[in-house]
Amino acid sequence: MFSFFEILDLLGTLAFAISGALAGRERRLDLFGMTILAFATAIGGGTIRDMMIGFTPVMWLTNLSYFYVTLIGVAMAIVFYKKFNVLRYSLFLFDTIGIAVFTLIGIEKGMRIGLHPVICVTLGTITACFGGVIRDILANKIPIIFRKEIYATACILGGGMYYFLHYFQLQKDVIYIATAGTIMIIRALSVKYKWSLPFAHD
Amino acid sequence: MFSFFEILDLLGTLAFAISGALAGRERRLDLFGMTILAFATAIGGGTIRDMMIGFTPVMWLTNLSYFYVTLIGVAMAIVFYKKFNVLRYSLFLFDTIGIAVFTLIGIEKGMRIGLHPVICVTLGTITACFGGVIRDILANKIPIIFRKEIYATACILGGGMYYFLHYFQLQKDVIYIATAGTIMIIRALSVKYKWSLPFAHD
Amino acid sequence: MFSFFEILDLLGTLAFAISGALAGRERRLDLFGMTILAFATAIGGGTIRDMMIGFTPVMWLTNLSYFYVTLIGVAMAIVFYKKFNVLRYSLFLFDTIGIAVFTLIGIEKGMRIGLHPVICVTLGTITACFGGVIRDILANKIPIIFRKEIYATACILGGGMYYFLHYFQLQKDVIYIATAGTIMIIRALSVKYKWSLPFAHD
Repeated sequence: MFSFFEILDLLGTLAFAISGALAGRERRLDLFGMTILAFATAIGGGTIRDMMIGFTPVMWLTNLSYFYVTLIGVAMAIVFYKKFNVLRYSLFLFDTIGIAVFTLIGIEKGMRIGLHPVICVTLGTITACFGGVIRDILANKIPIIFRKEIYATACILGGGMYYFLHYFQLQKDVIYIATAGTIMIIRALSVKYKWSLPFAHD
Repeated sequence: MFSFFEILDLLGTLAFAISGALAGRERRLDLFGMTILAFATAIGGGTIRDMMIGFTPVMWLTNLSYFYVTLIGVAMAIVFYKKFNVLRYSLFLFDTIGIAVFTLIGIEKGMRIGLHPVICVTLGTITACFGGVIRDILANKIPIIFRKEIYATACILGGGMYYFLHYFQLQKDVIYIATAGTIMIIRALSVKYKWSLPFAHD
Repeated sequence: MFSFFEILDLLGTLAFAISGALAGRERRLDLFGMTILAFATAIGGGTIRDMMIGFTPVMWLTNLSYFYVTLIGVAMAIVFYKKFNVLRYSLFLFDTIGIAVFTLIGIEKGMRIGLHPVICVTLGTITACFGGVIRDILANKIPIIFRKEIYATACILGGGMYYFLHYFQLQKDVIYIATAGTIMIIRALSVKYKWSLPFAHD
């Protein structure tokens, strides 16, 4: 039914949806507002990517898994609202899986139409990061990823790893795992050791 | 010249344009700012829809009625600025016609390329609601429809009515009227009785 | 290598990128945030234009000059941060060149697919102005061009000049120079004499 890759994609979508719905709850939005923030976070990056490269209808219009998984994320955000501190680690894990898989999907889509590696990595980073940017804009905040933590940087470095291994013509599977691994490890270390980019303020 | 349906579409566009221009006036924007807010509100939802499904150039680039009606809306907002309390009921009526017709247009466009009913209703809701969302983002506010009142919900329920009647193979005209009626009645009742969604705050 | 027109386009892109990066620095964003604001400002208007008319992949995905020039803009914003008061006039000059060239590009792209003059001028204005609008939204401010100064208006009047001369079938080169000149002169005069649109507040 679903490949391993697709399952990771949906886990990432779920984590993003939950983070969007929770952001909506925090901002005291109603059920519809929470749902829109969940959708924007979960599918916003991929939607912008697909519109820019001309892959229309965009992915979630023809693959309904995104739609249903996002609704499940909203339901989970409501039901477990008070317990999300307990779930914090699962959420962080899913989110980290999410940015890794989303980056890979963006790179692959760019390559399919023969775009330059630099642009493909940019598309991967947009896929991974712009859902969160839209979420924060809709919630009327300066996007969090502009202000602290290594987030997009992990995606960009992962993209570099992708092309490094691609250059040596390694197997796709190996490239995928190494790219995703690079992103996840950098992301995890940056949170653990509070790494940040130059000019970052709290 | 124009069909009945097209006239309703333009009335909705007019109402949306006026609401956008008034929002700009309230935020003390200049004439250009008011005009952009009017355009964003009137054609923003349809523009996002058309970009996502790949109907390009998007609708208002090839059908100039939207352009001129929006400018008329800006002129009306300026001329009648002090009297819009008197016009409040007409505005509310037009706006309600607008979301009903916009929802129908979104559903129909999605069906034309064979998208799933759930997605078509989503496209209808985006057409009806995202103009207002963009207006509020440009005016640096959390979108009003995320916080109170039944608005998008009316569009979604109207979409449900559409497919319910579609399933029984009723005539297009009957389906259109019943769908638009559902949306308008739910919207009107929700304002009258101050219905709101769970988690809504003032 | 590059034509004169392309060089002006890239100078405009550079000015827009610098203005975006500086806005990010002012809002205390980190390096990534500054970079995204630079990209949004420099290529945001063209990206929206291309997505709306269906010219995909959008321009900067296939022409890497935009990408590299934007990165140069970010580097300049960082290195010369303290000295930008000295550079203020160069920046204003580049920015003014930018909106003039961007307006021309937008008009030309619209004409290539046979859109109405009114729409082509709108596309030109979007190309020139929406980068700045996105920059301000991402920085959580009401877009500056909605509030003061003649900016979009200069683009619109330049567009009028374009079609006025086009009507008399003048040479392309003459039309280009006259259009760009109109935009740059109106923009410069409006800043010098503090012209503003009706309803503008400080």
